[in-house]
Amino acid sequence: MELSTVHPLRKHIEAVTKLTDEEFEYILSHFTEKKIKKHGDLIREGEYINHEYYVLQGCLRTYFNDPDAGKEYTYQFAVEDWWLTDREAFLNGTPAKMTIECLEPCVLLSISKENREKLGREMWKYEHYLNVKSNIGYVALQKRMLGMITKNAKERYETFLEQYPHLANRIPKTYIASYLGVSRETISRLYRQ
Amino acid sequence: MELSTVHPLRKHIEAVTKLTDEEFEYILSHFTEKKIKKHGDLIREGEYINHEYYVLQGCLRTYFNDPDAGKEYTYQFAVEDWWLTDREAFLNGTPAKMTIECLEPCVLLSISKENREKLGREMWKYEHYLNVKSNIGYVALQKRMLGMITKNAKERYETFLEQYPHLANRIPKTYIASYLGVSRETISRLYRQ
Repeated sequence: MELSTVHPLRKHIEAVTKLTDEEFEYILSHFTEKKIKKHGDLIREGEYINHEYYVLQGCLRTYFNDPDAGKEYTYQFAVEDWWLTDREAFLNGTPAKMTIECLEPCVLLSISKENREKLGREMWKYEHYLNVKSNIGYVALQKRMLGMITKNAKERYETFLEQYPHLANRIPKTYIASYLGVSRETISRLYRQ
Repeated sequence: MELSTVHPLRKHIEAVTKLTDEEFEYILSHFTEKKIKKHGDLIREGEYINHEYYVLQGCLRTYFNDPDAGKEYTYQFAVEDWWLTDREAFLNGTPAKMTIECLEPCVLLSISKENREKLGREMWKYEHYLNVKSNIGYVALQKRMLGMITKNAKERYETFLEQYPHLANRIPKTYIASYLGVSRETISRLYRQ
């Protein structure tokens, strides 16, 4: 990275609250970088999760298995500037119900639960950033939930393309179909149109 | 309320972080009480929303209309100790997409966006409480989303009864059916079993 470039995490935090160079350096010192190859797993079902991750580069998929149904469900995707973890496992200290795999080679910034809480206590700005970020995540999930209730397959797919035009080419159609709760055939038919 | 009773909001905050009497009195001074009759609306679709609400007493339903489909969808319920608002409208300053109606006579504590942010800036404890609360809300919504993807009508209904046994008797079955995305007939059949 060139010296003149603003760090992506800094840009992300500063969309909420401005930081001095010292403040950002201090925040960054609580993270470690993690690289994972394509097809590698960031989190595996059953593991205890003590970190959350910020994506510097790459594309990841969160999915879970339903052994009763013999099915795999795609819960969400993440690309550059997104935060991810198994939130339930991370917050409650329960084993992960999901697996997060890298669809591309990935570079992530990792922060432990302890460092997250320490930073939040020490710097109001960081606690506030987490709060705003968490609310944005909630609203996005709420929109998706409403879409699941009120939209048909075609509308869900169109909304996905509108919301995430940069994802459609990076993610196999099978996974997009699984994420939207529609069949692979429906997606293929819609792609051709 | 008797002198010896702990205020429900204080109890709710103290599940996250302990407060002194002075701190709680200061927090409470930023709220105003609001009473609404049965069938009255707390929020109406199209309004700008500058408050969020904590339920002291009563039961509320959030729903939205889809004029294209000629349908009404129940998004969520709230009872004592729950927070609610149209979160998207509240956070983004856009008009409410939902209506919140009182299924019972309701008593709420109301806090404006300005006071919420002021309190969060002044008291780390309050910002932290909001953060924890928001994460719990996110995980609950995530669980519901996963349920919508992976569970059938019967399973969704059983999970609802398990999670919210105190709601089943306070809320008309039609609304529970609408919330679960199942037909009124399915719920009636399951009730008889």
